Amino acid sequence: MDDSEFVLNQSSINPYILNIEYAVRGPIVANAQRIQSELDAGIPKPFTELIWCNIGDCHAMGQKPISFLRQVVALIVDPSLIESDSHYPADVKQRARRILDNGGGLQYSSEMLGLPVIRQDCANYIQDRDGVPCNPDSVILSTGAGEMIKELLQVFARLQPSASTVNGLQYGVMIPIPQYPMYSASITQYNLQSVHYYLDESDNWSLDLSELRRAYDEAVGKCEPRVLVVINPGNPTGQVLRKEVIEDVVRFAKEKNLFILADEVYQHNVYAEGAKFYSFKRALHRLGPEFSTTVQLASLMSASKGYAGECGFRGGYCELLNPDARLQSLLYRQLANRGCPSVAGQAILDVIVNPPKPDEPSFAEHEREKSQVLGDLKLKAQMATETFNSIPGMRCNPVQGAMYAFPSIELPPKLIEEAKAKGMQPDAMYCTALLEEKGVCVVPGSGFGQRPGTYHFR
Amino acid sequence: MDDSEFVLNQSSINPYILNIEYAVRGPIVANAQRIQSELDAGIPKPFTELIWCNIGDCHAMGQKPISFLRQVVALIVDPSLIESDSHYPADVKQRARRILDNGGGLQYSSEMLGLPVIRQDCANYIQDRDGVPCNPDSVILSTGAGEMIKELLQVFARLQPSASTVNGLQYGVMIPIPQYPMYSASITQYNLQSVHYYLDESDNWSLDLSELRRAYDEAVGKCEPRVLVVINPGNPTGQVLRKEVIEDVVRFAKEKNLFILADEVYQHNVYAEGAKFYSFKRALHRLGPEFSTTVQLASLMSASKGYAGECGFRGGYCELLNPDARLQSLLYRQLANRGCPSVAGQAILDVIVNPPKPDEPSFAEHEREKSQVLGDLKLKAQMATETFNSIPGMRCNPVQGAMYAFPSIELPPKLIEEAKAKGMQPDAMYCTALLEEKGVCVVPGSGFGQRPGTYHFR
Ligand SMILES: Cc1ncc(COP(=O)(O)O)c(C=O)c1O
Ligand SMILES: Cc1ncc(COP(=O)(O)O)c(C=O)c1O
Repeated sequence: MDDSEFVLNQSSINPYILNIEYAVRGPIVANAQRIQSELDAGIPKPFTELIWCNIGDCHAMGQKPISFLRQVVALIVDPSLIESDSHYPADVKQRARRILDNGGGLQYSSEMLGLPVIRQDCANYIQDRDGVPCNPDSVILSTGAGEMIKELLQVFARLQPSASTVNGLQYGVMIPIPQYPMYSASITQYNLQSVHYYLDESDNWSLDLSELRRAYDEAVGKCEPRVLVVINPGNPTGQVLRKEVIEDVVRFAKEKNLFILADEVYQHNVYAEGAKFYSFKRALHRLGPEFSTTVQLASLMSASKGYAGECGFRGGYCELLNPDARLQSLLYRQLANRGCPSVAGQAILDVIVNPPKPDEPSFAEHEREKSQVLGDLKLKAQMATETFNSIPGMRCNPVQGAMYAFPSIELPPKLIEEAKAKGMQPDAMYCTALLEEKGVCVVPGSGFGQRPGTYHFR
Repeated sequence: MDDSEFVLNQSSINPYILNIEYAVRGPIVANAQRIQSELDAGIPKPFTELIWCNIGDCHAMGQKPISFLRQVVALIVDPSLIESDSHYPADVKQRARRILDNGGGLQYSSEMLGLPVIRQDCANYIQDRDGVPCNPDSVILSTGAGEMIKELLQVFARLQPSASTVNGLQYGVMIPIPQYPMYSASITQYNLQSVHYYLDESDNWSLDLSELRRAYDEAVGKCEPRVLVVINPGNPTGQVLRKEVIEDVVRFAKEKNLFILADEVYQHNVYAEGAKFYSFKRALHRLGPEFSTTVQLASLMSASKGYAGECGFRGGYCELLNPDARLQSLLYRQLANRGCPSVAGQAILDVIVNPPKPDEPSFAEHEREKSQVLGDLKLKAQMATETFNSIPGMRCNPVQGAMYAFPSIELPPKLIEEAKAKGMQPDAMYCTALLEEKGVCVVPGSGFGQRPGTYHFR
């Protein structure tokens, strides 16, 4: 091919972008889209309906949105409804009015970190959750948690090692395996080095400190590990980490001067008996001022998960604790260049962190809807585990939290060989068969990462 | 300072991020925020109210949102209103129902490029505007035009030159001076090289082809120019480019194999007698298939501008024409890693590109509101020009379009010297005085770029 046909030279295409792999929208999903159009066009298949399980979108799977959330945001979108509507409860109108009166009209708002009134509501929520103070100045609103993941990792993007660093090493980002693929994709995009620590499948996908140390020790010298990502509750693995584990992780991060990126977007999705969400911030405080005033922590929350499941609004927050001056300066410079986060997303997040109170008219209905959704999710979590464990060759840890099951599958050696001969991942081949023969679209474990020689899907 | 206090080493802080300067949220704005809080706290100032002119947010300046837009989106946010509301016109309900029935519930939507129904509506809009076909597959929806600017420029991000390219040069992005500062900030952030071409202040800030050539020729050898940004109508300069100029630019881009990034977000904001918006896409087609099938063009549109002025929703589209395979592959990989654009933003954009038709009940009121807004903006454009030109030492070109005036100011040599002695830009010093003495917050010309020795503000 003649290079002059292209605006990008072959030799200078950015390999870090070219290598982005985002499994949740990977080739199996493209294949499923094709099958869906063929079904729509009346082409016969071994099944009549395609079942989409590739993405954690509860509403797309039929879950009804929570009324109170939508009502408040509808009034913010069209404030004239506050007068004309005769149907919404009074507390819905009060909520909307309060945000509108505090700069929450749907304008740009000069506030790059988000509306102060909503940052304050997030701070109140965090304070109530953890029982320790939260300063609204440390809360940054975002267009979804995903945006913040990318902004935070980008801060650590280095130039080509040789040109810019003393020792010629890239920064390393420690991520769990399996992990949410936005992490691996962004690490690639920003030319960072990923450092894999394996979650322990034999212990309910828990995080094992000695494995964290092993991963760290092996990485040192190949890169400079600086960020430690923990996803709790876990995606795709569904584990809910115990308090002691989290405190161990914090001690480790302090010892190694790691920035903790705590992805806590599933904090409302905890189902298993005895499991409880315990935030990294609480751990910092329980360990004392030596930790709570020094360990650098970003905790992420999203409107897309929990009982709200509001994926379309793209709303989230990040609480940023103890950022050092350099990190903060770089991050704020990037944020100044993004425009403000979607105000509709900010608004829905506000109602999620500030739900109806017991003495308000919407309280009872809101509680009912919320426990319905969380009850359904809990039931599905149990059913998924039981079903997978009843199938020969599959094994699945109990889904303690989040929204996914990540069963392991035993693949016949013949299939494994066949896949390798075709240059395919064996689990991708299995998922392709599942799609083409049964009409079920799942994501192969290789998209999230797994121990070599094991196979899974989500 | 001891390096170990920081998670980022001094030597490896990414200078490209550290150097991001985003004037619209720069030090003068920070200063203004401080003054505003002092005013709020009752501290006396030479003025009683601060006038914010730093940002192009019409709603924040008191412009009323267009009813039809907000009504349709309110119904998408809370579809139960379609039944319960007795106040909205029938066409509002039809619009909302149509989007809801086509996958526009506020869920994630597996569509990384945006909802197909809305991409189709954008394509119809473009087709009607230009009188040439538009394929919805070439329309990409985004969380504001700003998001697309960054995604597109990032595709051209190279690694450190020496490590990755044959000739050791970075890609150059040609930008007008003065320009919208998100361009210069993003060019810095992604380690690209900016190539400045000056707009001609003596000819209503028009774009002069010989100046484009000069800039290009001087840049070659220092970088590889590959992207040509044109903002039309212009921000901050307010010019509306003539058809012939645009066609010349297209010929030039073809000659030099430049990717045209046409920022056409102000396409509805044209006020001056005789001025008319002429799209780059039309120019491609008028010049014939040799151009329309080869020249790479991204045309940007936004919900934040025009008569809608919906800055808070973060909605926009990009029409991408003739992308070469490499560019498209890189861009799509990046987009797969962003989640979907805000569905509320997509919805408001839909109603903007698909306004009420003459036979629909909302038509008359919508037309009334729209011409009110555009009439007000036109009046303000005229008044701004006249006022500035009546002040000794100021000169301002007619504001033909967009939303800003960019008058030049003669600064006394003494002030210029004083500023230089303090290491400040002279116009920044002037704007600081304007803020502190008169309570008017404007952005100095140096934030947008200007010919050396000239001074402006927006
Ligand atoms: C672990 C995890 N973090 C972050 C996100 C992104 O959240 P948002 O939709 O707010 O961008 C997801 C979405 O699936 C997720 O699973
Ligand atoms: C020329 C230009 N392009 C793009 C944008 C960004 O638009 P959006 O608000 O859709 O991100 C602006 C906003 O001011 C602008 O002036």
